[in-house]
Order: sequence, then C-alpha cells, then structure tokens
Amino acid sequence: MERIEQHASFGGRQEVWRHASRSTGCDMRLGVYLPPAALRGERCPVLYWLSGLTCTEQNFITKAGAQQHAAAHGLIVVAPDTSPRGEGVADDPAYDLGQGAGFYVNATQQPWAPHFRMEDYVAQELPALIEQHFPATDARGLFGHSMGGHGALTLALRHPGRWRSVSAFSPIVAPSQVPWGQKALAAYLGEDPAAWRAHDAVALIAGARERLPLLIDQGEADEFLPQLRPELLRAACDAAGHPLTLRLHPGYDHSYYFIASFMAEHVAHHARALRG
Amino acid sequence: MERIEQHASFGGRQEVWRHASRSTGCDMRLGVYLPPAALRGERCPVLYWLSGLTCTEQNFITKAGAQQHAAAHGLIVVAPDTSPRGEGVADDPAYDLGQGAGFYVNATQQPWAPHFRMEDYVAQELPALIEQHFPATDARGLFGHSMGGHGALTLALRHPGRWRSVSAFSPIVAPSQVPWGQKALAAYLGEDPAAWRAHDAVALIAGARERLPLLIDQGEADEFLPQLRPELLRAACDAAGHPLTLRLHPGYDHSYYFIASFMAEHVAHHARALRG
Repeated sequence: MERIEQHASFGGRQEVWRHASRSTGCDMRLGVYLPPAALRGERCPVLYWLSGLTCTEQNFITKAGAQQHAAAHGLIVVAPDTSPRGEGVADDPAYDLGQGAGFYVNATQQPWAPHFRMEDYVAQELPALIEQHFPATDARGLFGHSMGGHGALTLALRHPGRWRSVSAFSPIVAPSQVPWGQKALAAYLGEDPAAWRAHDAVALIAGARERLPLLIDQGEADEFLPQLRPELLRAACDAAGHPLTLRLHPGYDHSYYFIASFMAEHVAHHARALRG
Repeated sequence: MERIEQHASFGGRQEVWRHASRSTGCDMRLGVYLPPAALRGERCPVLYWLSGLTCTEQNFITKAGAQQHAAAHGLIVVAPDTSPRGEGVADDPAYDLGQGAGFYVNATQQPWAPHFRMEDYVAQELPALIEQHFPATDARGLFGHSMGGHGALTLALRHPGRWRSVSAFSPIVAPSQVPWGQKALAAYLGEDPAAWRAHDAVALIAGARERLPLLIDQGEADEFLPQLRPELLRAACDAAGHPLTLRLHPGYDHSYYFIASFMAEHVAHHARALRG
C-alpha cells in the first residue's frame, strides 16, 4: 500500500491510499480517515462508505463532512473508489456504465468480468486490508449514497454477519426495476433478471438472514426519485417485518449538500452499533 | 441577478447566483447560504468569505463545512469568485496571476485595469447587492483563506466601519515581502512598492483607524508558510498594540481539511460580533 495524500483533519488524519487489488486486478484508491483515537494507537471500529455514480474516493472525503463526527465517535472511515479504473480496464462513454459505475457486483459478462469485481473488493478484500494495515477492530459498518446506497444495502443483505450496522442516503433500492439498474445489471450480469434480483435490496429483504435495522434518508426534491423508489423498500420491509427508519426530507435534493446535512445522525447510528 | 443553483442544506439553502457586475465589467458568480432564520423571513447578519488562489465560488461552498454553523448562528454567508472571468477578461497562464488570482485590489496597470477591480467589488458593490436582494442586515463580517485571508485583513483595515468582525485562515499577511504578492501587486499596481504596502496587512496595522480583533489560524505543516509569514503579523500587532489571536496548529496543512477543522470557531467568532 502506498499513501498518496495525508491531511490533518479534526484532530485526526484524512489519508488517501493506493494499492494493487487482487479482486479488481488493477490499482485502487481509497480514502481512510483516522480519528484522534486511532492516532493515539487505539483500535477503532471501521465505517465503510460507498459512493454513487461518477464518484471517485475524493467526493466523499472532500464534501460529506464526516470527519468531525468520526473524530467525535472514534470511528475509522474508509471510502473506496466506485469501480476499477485505468487504461487496461473496460469502459463505456456513458456516465452510468463502466468506470465510475461498478454497482458493487462481480461482473460475469464481457468485457467487464476481468476487472469489475466490486463485491469481492468491498465485502472481502477491503476489510481484510484495512484490518491488517490500520488500528482497526473487526466491528464494521456500511453506508453509502445512491448507487453506493444500493451497494450498502445489498452487500449487507448478501453477507450476513459481516457488518454490524447499515444505512443509506438516497439509495437505488430496486435496481432490477429502474433504468440505471437494468442497464448496469444487464451489462455486468447478463440478460436474465433472476441474476439482477440477487443484487436488488427490495428483492433480497424477504429472505434476509439477519434483521439489521435500516436507516434511510431521502430528499423529496431529489431529481432522481424515479431511479430510487423508496416506497418499494418501505413495502418490502413492511411485508417482511424488517426494521426500517425511512425519513423523507422536504426540499432536499440528491447532492452532497443533502448528505452533509444528515451525516451527523448516520455516523451516530453506526457508532451506537459499533461502539455500543 | 439570476439564481443558477439551489440546494437545501442544514435546514437552510445554499444558492449560487450570477449577476452583471459594474465593478468588474463582467458576469460574477457568488455563493449565498441562507440560514433557516433567513428562510423564515428574519433579517440576518452577513459573513463574507474570500477564497484563495485558483478558487471559484465553488470551493468554499462544497468543502468548508460552514453551512451547519451558519445555520446554528443565523448568519448569511456570501462567497464571491476570486476574480473577474470570461473570454474578454485578461489572463495569464500562471495560476497565481489573472483569472482566479484577483488579490482583492483595483488594478491600475494594463491589461488588468479594465476588469480587475475586486476591492470595489467586495467592499462596495457586493454588500449593497446582498443587502438589497436578500433578508440581510448591514452587520457584516469578513473572513478568508490564503490570498482571501490577505483580502479579508486588508479590506477590513482599508475600510474601517464597514465590517464588524474579521478573521483568516493561513493568510498572506505581507504580500509586499513574499513572491506571490510581489508578482501580483507589481502586475496589478505597478513597480512602486509604496503602492503594494497600501494593500499589505502588516504594513497597514500601524495606521489602523479601528482595532478590530484579528483571529488567525495557521497550520504549522502548511506547505506555503514562506508565502504567509504569520510571524510578521504578530510583530506588527505587538508593535501597534493591535488585538491578535494567532493560533498555530501542529500538523495542519493549507487545505480545506484544515479550514473545515476550525470553521466552527471562526463562525462563532463572527456571530459574537454580528449578533452580540
């Protein structure tokens, strides 16, 4: 691992690292915030953030305002990139497919299969890497935004026992039913919708093997609401008896201004589970 | 004035406006944060932020994390661009001259004189515009970063009575003594150093007509310390009996990670003066 940025931040340190990933077969970058407790040598729980379409590791660490809350609660916050990248990695001219749009799945289709293995990367390789290289415990939380909210919900549902807490901002809750998800999942997983439903939070809720409470914040002025469909998650959780706190916020849009406004409560939600 | 962005943020609204400026003779953009109190129709004091080299109105509003504190204290926060811009506006290939590097002076030299009138813009036109178009009182605070810290200090010193409070992060305190300032002030104001000293906070302190207390935060790991020279401001304030709180922070650099870490205290400093 090579550290390529470091900045003092709220008594801790915001770092950016690069490493050669065996999951994706390319170099990956990630943000790592170390709270003051970690700099003092204490082992801290780790909160993983998954970003949305077009983002790199930079969007969250520069705009979300999470560091102050992570510092207060003594949490490490890890923010990986949203896909494999580089000259040898397949891509598409559209913003919602290929680099910057990994959708947190392991692709089975060409030309994506060799590198687009973001599920393995986030659920397996990344926690092992963090717990080896940083003063981290194995208490893990997972959250994200939009495509990354989809990633947080589906990876938590597909890997029970791996995360102690989960939340999302403006998640794509039913990718198999909306254009962003149908396009990406068809490209990465093939044309059979059964394969898509294995990566669809709304479809997975009924068979959830653990009942991690879901905290979801959604702006009512979100320009992408037709891609997000929070009402489908509410119906699925109601039907399955899955604990859900879904908060709809009048006037808020899809931007990091929305995320920053409710970041304190998300970090506190995870801290209760990870340090409680 | 034309509103070109608006985002709900911490119960208030972050907006971006464009208007035709008579000071600079071109369209200017600015960020305006309206706290919840302003959205309820209360008139609020206004805190003006001046950004550093290369910045537009976007850097502060996306990265500094000021909105949460402005919301709590009921302050409007206005963040203008750092220079005139556009195809008809003079520029230089270097990052530290021309567009993005206005240095908050009225240029007297060609090719800069027609548009580079940032002192008039920030000290005169902008407050009048804000107080006309928004629910603003005439209680004004001024702060900034790096070149914008220089702008905050010098505009406060050159326009006594116009601002009730002033502070800065990592300011260029003595532009007439450091390379950034010598280059820009020579270009904008000509080769006579006497003209530069009229825009040099360290040179202005001795003759200050009011004693606004200065709050300055400076990172000790700032890669630009040789351009900033906080010790010169300390000496000038000591000699003149000017009230100065200069805080040096081990490990912090020149970035917005540093600014965000101490933003709460700066906004509180201004709120005491503007609402006290």
